[in-house]
Amino acid sequence: MNPAFVVAVKNIKGVVEDKMLVPGFLASSIASGIKANHELDLSLIYSEVPANVAAVFTTNRIKAASILLSKRRIKNGWCQAVLINSGNANACTGKKGLEDAQRLTKLVSKELRISERLVLISSTGIIGRPLPLKRIEKSLPRLIQSLSPSGLPSTARAIMTTDTFPKMEIKRERIGGREITVLGIVKGAGMIMPRLATMLSFILTDLRISPPLLKEILREGVEESFHQITVDGQQSTNDMVLVLANGRAQNETLLPRSVEKFKALLFDLLGKLAKMIVKDGEGATKLVEIRIKGARSLKEAKKVAFSVANSNLVKTAFFGEEVNWGRIMAAVGSSGAKVLSDHIDIFFDEIMVVKGGIGKGEEERARVILKKPEFLVLINLNQGSYQTKVFTSDLSLGYVEVNSSYLS
Amino acid sequence: MNPAFVVAVKNIKGVVEDKMLVPGFLASSIASGIKANHELDLSLIYSEVPANVAAVFTTNRIKAASILLSKRRIKNGWCQAVLINSGNANACTGKKGLEDAQRLTKLVSKELRISERLVLISSTGIIGRPLPLKRIEKSLPRLIQSLSPSGLPSTARAIMTTDTFPKMEIKRERIGGREITVLGIVKGAGMIMPRLATMLSFILTDLRISPPLLKEILREGVEESFHQITVDGQQSTNDMVLVLANGRAQNETLLPRSVEKFKALLFDLLGKLAKMIVKDGEGATKLVEIRIKGARSLKEAKKVAFSVANSNLVKTAFFGEEVNWGRIMAAVGSSGAKVLSDHIDIFFDEIMVVKGGIGKGEEERARVILKKPEFLVLINLNQGSYQTKVFTSDLSLGYVEVNSSYLS
Repeated sequence: MNPAFVVAVKNIKGVVEDKMLVPGFLASSIASGIKANHELDLSLIYSEVPANVAAVFTTNRIKAASILLSKRRIKNGWCQAVLINSGNANACTGKKGLEDAQRLTKLVSKELRISERLVLISSTGIIGRPLPLKRIEKSLPRLIQSLSPSGLPSTARAIMTTDTFPKMEIKRERIGGREITVLGIVKGAGMIMPRLATMLSFILTDLRISPPLLKEILREGVEESFHQITVDGQQSTNDMVLVLANGRAQNETLLPRSVEKFKALLFDLLGKLAKMIVKDGEGATKLVEIRIKGARSLKEAKKVAFSVANSNLVKTAFFGEEVNWGRIMAAVGSSGAKVLSDHIDIFFDEIMVVKGGIGKGEEERARVILKKPEFLVLINLNQGSYQTKVFTSDLSLGYVEVNSSYLS
Repeated sequence: MNPAFVVAVKNIKGVVEDKMLVPGFLASSIASGIKANHELDLSLIYSEVPANVAAVFTTNRIKAASILLSKRRIKNGWCQAVLINSGNANACTGKKGLEDAQRLTKLVSKELRISERLVLISSTGIIGRPLPLKRIEKSLPRLIQSLSPSGLPSTARAIMTTDTFPKMEIKRERIGGREITVLGIVKGAGMIMPRLATMLSFILTDLRISPPLLKEILREGVEESFHQITVDGQQSTNDMVLVLANGRAQNETLLPRSVEKFKALLFDLLGKLAKMIVKDGEGATKLVEIRIKGARSLKEAKKVAFSVANSNLVKTAFFGEEVNWGRIMAAVGSSGAKVLSDHIDIFFDEIMVVKGGIGKGEEERARVILKKPEFLVLINLNQGSYQTKVFTSDLSLGYVEVNSSYLS
């Protein structure tokens, strides 16, 4: 057993391993004073043994220190601890920001008696302010002492910024001859877009799986989940999806059937987390699935889906519960896809409102659909066989309220 | 003299030609009942002689009937009358919509005794509803009877939808040995984006100019004006910029120096009209110039400019008068341009808030700038010598209010 684990477990009286939410994973969260209001803002996730790690990072050219450092460290394929802070993005903080991040991971590694290279860091919050380093340093011993196998739900809360509820999902299934657990937590709320956003997600599993396979499955899973949601079409400097697999289940080497089982389990979990983000989008009052059918290519299907899902005019109409399908048509037409106006059908749930590009006069019936908190907008381009879907929220007065005063 | 002009002028008692706003142009506007509230909704612009015409139309794949018909008609290079209605876009109305548009232009041409091919049509308003054809037809004789050389200001009002003020600009200058007038009217408000939007603009001049030159100058002018503004990143099905040059000034053939003079005059006029649109953007309380310097190419400069100018997070921060330059950095980084974080400088007017990608702690001083109704955000990428600028508005509670209830 890893000596660091012994250190950590010493502080947890009477822990029985099978009471762990995910075997071999501990977590803790405290209020270190980064957030002014004494809310939880510092978390540690710790695996008793080094875990295989795969990750997807923001593609924003402006990257936070946490991204720069973790991206470098992850290359060796192993990770044992992740330090996460909210309330401060440590982005646009230059060399000093990177040094701060390095210093914090070094202190964590020392306390845990593990290699610095096994410690990753993740940050979210305001851009452009230096981390309150002293306060965080002073809090680290307390953070490590409170590591607990039941600590993950608090972590889901500690990583929140403008989120209104913590987002966690847990799944268990027999894979490779063993009961496997997969737990995911995520934060979102603003700057949510495909290709990530101010979105942090940590997926923990006790599955034993080869690093390349883990990486491949994560990429595919993110494509089908976090890359198919949008709140405001914005990308952040700090996004990160991490999956840690510590192998504690000691399952057999995965056969193709088991891989498929794990994929289904993970994709389902990622999909649920992604939907939670949109549901908790800043100011959101609606969760809307934009489904595109009959596209000439997947690329065109996605262009149309995101053009509609990111249209402020479409999203304000959702908020106002207005059956303004004309705005949807305009967004489809300006998506860049070579659509044909007279081929387009549009449905709100099962109500057809547009047939062959012309309104069917079903506004009254469709208005009932728009009053629901969740509904589907299906756009059939009738040009081919490709399809896709995107989840989006409405654009409400609340979005503007939240975002015009986030700093003050 | 064109017989139609005689017909029209018969109805205007005591008109002295030099009292015309633009020599040779008449206009009229009435409330035909398309808009429920008895506001002006139908206009006619008429040139006493066929005018050279150049135009730029929406690039939205979903095109209104007015676009389909006018685009076809304009190919012959001549135009003598433009029928314009607001309150109904006649878009997504199928074959019937096109027939309606054709029928209206035919009736106008009959009444004016000119060829149908010289009549264009332009529409703006709600998408997807059939035109109230009977009501419009009944109004046409009255519309034509009220043609007047002083009618253009009313046209600027009649084409408004969610605009809050009419937008007109007039310029006079000696070109080619004659005093030349250029008058422009425009409507905007929502769905404003580069590559046009629900934006109609009509430019009238008495200059004598060759059709190819007029076309070339219009394209260049639109690129420098209407294509450099954004309110909500949305494109419409109905956009149209028309310029009519009726040659009534009987100026000499334009020499290069005169062409440059006309270009300067027209570009200045277009720029002023474009800015008016942003100022009157739906719910707008700020007019912000986003200026990019030091880009590696014009393409990258534009990518960065529009990424910032269309960012809901940046625009809500403008509304909240928050110096949230982190959101600007995030929008720069996710623009698709290969920017370098540590090269970027950002100014609010003359206050430098970011130097080399790092905040300068000038939030207090910069906040004063943000309280102004108009200010500049200058982003220097320090990578090259290309620059551009875009005018944008803030995203306010008013925008959401207007757009969540436009139909109801």
